[in-house]
Amino acid sequence: MERGKITTEHLTALKEIVGDEFVFVDADSVKYYGHDETEHLLYLPDVVVKPRTAEEISAIMKLCNEYGIPVTPRGGGTGLSGGALPHLGGVLLATERLNSILEIDERNLQITTEPGVITEVLQNAVKEKGLFYPPDPSSRGSCFIGGNIAENSGGPKAVKYGVVKDYVLNLEVVLPTGEIIWTGANVLKNSTGYNLTQLVVGSEGTLGIVTKIVLRLIPLPKYDLLMLAPFASLEKASEAVSAIFRAGFVPSAMELAEIDALKIVSKMVDSHVVPVNDDIAAHLIIEVDGNNLDVLMSEMEAIATLLQDFEAGEIFFADDAQQKAELWKLRRRVAEAVKSSGYTIEEDTVVPRAELPALIKGVKALGKKHDFHAVCYGHAGDGNLHVRIHKDGIPNSHGNDEMQFILSELFKLVYSLGGTISGEHGIGLIQKGYMNIVFQEANLRLMREIKKAFDPNNILNAGKIFDIA
Amino acid sequence: MERGKITTEHLTALKEIVGDEFVFVDADSVKYYGHDETEHLLYLPDVVVKPRTAEEISAIMKLCNEYGIPVTPRGGGTGLSGGALPHLGGVLLATERLNSILEIDERNLQITTEPGVITEVLQNAVKEKGLFYPPDPSSRGSCFIGGNIAENSGGPKAVKYGVVKDYVLNLEVVLPTGEIIWTGANVLKNSTGYNLTQLVVGSEGTLGIVTKIVLRLIPLPKYDLLMLAPFASLEKASEAVSAIFRAGFVPSAMELAEIDALKIVSKMVDSHVVPVNDDIAAHLIIEVDGNNLDVLMSEMEAIATLLQDFEAGEIFFADDAQQKAELWKLRRRVAEAVKSSGYTIEEDTVVPRAELPALIKGVKALGKKHDFHAVCYGHAGDGNLHVRIHKDGIPNSHGNDEMQFILSELFKLVYSLGGTISGEHGIGLIQKGYMNIVFQEANLRLMREIKKAFDPNNILNAGKIFDIA
Repeated sequence: MERGKITTEHLTALKEIVGDEFVFVDADSVKYYGHDETEHLLYLPDVVVKPRTAEEISAIMKLCNEYGIPVTPRGGGTGLSGGALPHLGGVLLATERLNSILEIDERNLQITTEPGVITEVLQNAVKEKGLFYPPDPSSRGSCFIGGNIAENSGGPKAVKYGVVKDYVLNLEVVLPTGEIIWTGANVLKNSTGYNLTQLVVGSEGTLGIVTKIVLRLIPLPKYDLLMLAPFASLEKASEAVSAIFRAGFVPSAMELAEIDALKIVSKMVDSHVVPVNDDIAAHLIIEVDGNNLDVLMSEMEAIATLLQDFEAGEIFFADDAQQKAELWKLRRRVAEAVKSSGYTIEEDTVVPRAELPALIKGVKALGKKHDFHAVCYGHAGDGNLHVRIHKDGIPNSHGNDEMQFILSELFKLVYSLGGTISGEHGIGLIQKGYMNIVFQEANLRLMREIKKAFDPNNILNAGKIFDIA
Repeated sequence: MERGKITTEHLTALKEIVGDEFVFVDADSVKYYGHDETEHLLYLPDVVVKPRTAEEISAIMKLCNEYGIPVTPRGGGTGLSGGALPHLGGVLLATERLNSILEIDERNLQITTEPGVITEVLQNAVKEKGLFYPPDPSSRGSCFIGGNIAENSGGPKAVKYGVVKDYVLNLEVVLPTGEIIWTGANVLKNSTGYNLTQLVVGSEGTLGIVTKIVLRLIPLPKYDLLMLAPFASLEKASEAVSAIFRAGFVPSAMELAEIDALKIVSKMVDSHVVPVNDDIAAHLIIEVDGNNLDVLMSEMEAIATLLQDFEAGEIFFADDAQQKAELWKLRRRVAEAVKSSGYTIEEDTVVPRAELPALIKGVKALGKKHDFHAVCYGHAGDGNLHVRIHKDGIPNSHGNDEMQFILSELFKLVYSLGGTISGEHGIGLIQKGYMNIVFQEANLRLMREIKKAFDPNNILNAGKIFDIA
């Protein structure tokens, strides 16, 4: 069998490993698995394989490692940086059949799950036991928990509860060489050797394929309250964000959306809950949660009072579960709505929280200078701002030279503010060209060497995050 | 100059880098820096060097890297696993002159500090601004924040607030090859490349020398309440621990101590606050904190009621700051007291929280089987149990064969319960022989390869955590 190319012998071997019915080479399958939510990029794999177990994945990796065949792992296919795109062809390894929650351990407040479980399914399963798994990316209704591990996902709750990495205790991982390891232990504290768990979290499927995940859970807070506060300027809204934390409040969500984004999404879902009059430039969505309703009420009041210092308009308090759900639906669907109206790149900039006003000001100034329009929204409480750019006459693609230049300018601005390129989406395929803006060569060298330690033949999701020379 | 050995030429070069007055070869200095708090081990370095800046450390590393000279970094010297012991001689690099807090950023709730700042000094400095850095090892009055990073330290507050790794945003690190890098960015969310920050945290000074640390801070809770609950059996006390979390409470501390340990420490500090009558086998120290005193009072009452199900005796509520301080002093000095009365090994076992009763039962059973006496205390809420062993007729040292056998049995028990060797002390020099109990060969291979990527000539804290073949 020839090195690097898929042959009929390889296909036969793959079928022996996972069964004939889970190896796909038909046009529809390779096309479906050739794209994710990243721009309109399409890369056809040679074959799509759907294993069921870590042992099957181990056998696949051993085969591909021996013959130098590229392997691209894929979760729910909701990624925004191209991490699951099989840009080198080869094997697309879909994890969708590893979709069982294995145990909800109520004694230890832990869940053990396979990677192909949809995040929201997992969240609901633990909720039924009075437990809480906070990280909730906007795509939680379709993304996989395994993909969340790969990208170190965040979401609105991160501002109070942290991101995925803060919940991962232990991972079963199939290494590119086929060995199956557990990275750590199912414990809350661990100082036993290098933290391989944290190294795998956020490594975008380049260091191994996660096949079991142990997450810590916390008690579910009994109550939450939600408000929507309009602001006449984006800067004032973002200044208010920092002030809330400095006053000692830790909201369970602190989202910012420019009015342009809210207009588009309100229209898309035919909602009228968000005021969109001409005096409003942006809204903050602020949630508090906890176990004592009186305390939460007084927190909301205190926050509302504080917002007046930043010229907030009339604040809307969501009265019931339905209003809350509608507000959250709007927030969660902003990305999709804005994308469908011509802004196809969602950047994932992140800066220290108090630099948010400077970032927003800088984005608008860059837009003026380079003649593009930007719409901003995101997890303001974390300093994590999604920026979507549209410039007439050029395609909204990282592949376009002019767009690349604009994005380089944006990322240089972010770096100058103490921030970095990606807060929760990852680098994947389309952002690797910007890594040298935020890292020295020594950092990149270390990352390449770590990759080599895990994947000596560079077969697993190769060419993601960085290129190997 | 000869490879590997310190010569007068090397000493001259070191003096040129840091200044004559910061290079020490006198007997007192090499003896002082030849030990830490680990057993009674003593390894004399050839020379003690006290640089002031990252640039000086970079120059030292370049020199030592070129000539293959072992370098051992040292913080406060309070380590319990021998991480700072210069067991190969060479250069002992003391970080005590890098002792400035560089910035407390109240806008972003972050602190930037050098590694040689004493943890308690840092905590008090942020407290003055109404901010909170929770990780608080028992040695906080003398350990360095840099050492806490190296060992991923915990302490009593970890149960609610997490350990050191949960607060580190970004690190300036001098690599063994002399390059100076920042591992990440000063942001709360980061999905930009491999998590070098988390890889360095807990790497026990083997991957680089941390020269600047950016930590996130949180608002300081306004109130805390403390109780001491006696139990007639150690098992009942440890069962109560798990029940409290399952009932939805998240105490800010949840410590367990066997009566033997409390007797010794009470005598040492001449305190009478802890009841030590014959019906008591162990105590739980439980703290809750938050911003609403009424809520905390009712939490304490609810917890006290719950404890009755586990046959708790009369609960003592600390009435004022002085009583709280006395209780905490007792807890913090347990290790020192128990050590001084013949139990010189403090093991750092950690299991899933609900396995604590099984661990304690197992420790006692092992003691019976192998004829040793064990005393247990620690951070029960995290499943992190410190076990000190004494056996008549054998030295309390990891160097003793029989002790090694006993500890192997203990760690096998811990592993069988889903736990691991070290929750917060690290592996260092004295525990590396047990790593294969909890890790497969593939894990250890990856760790060695990562070490090699950072330190190709194996000069920095070599032979800690694992041996390089």
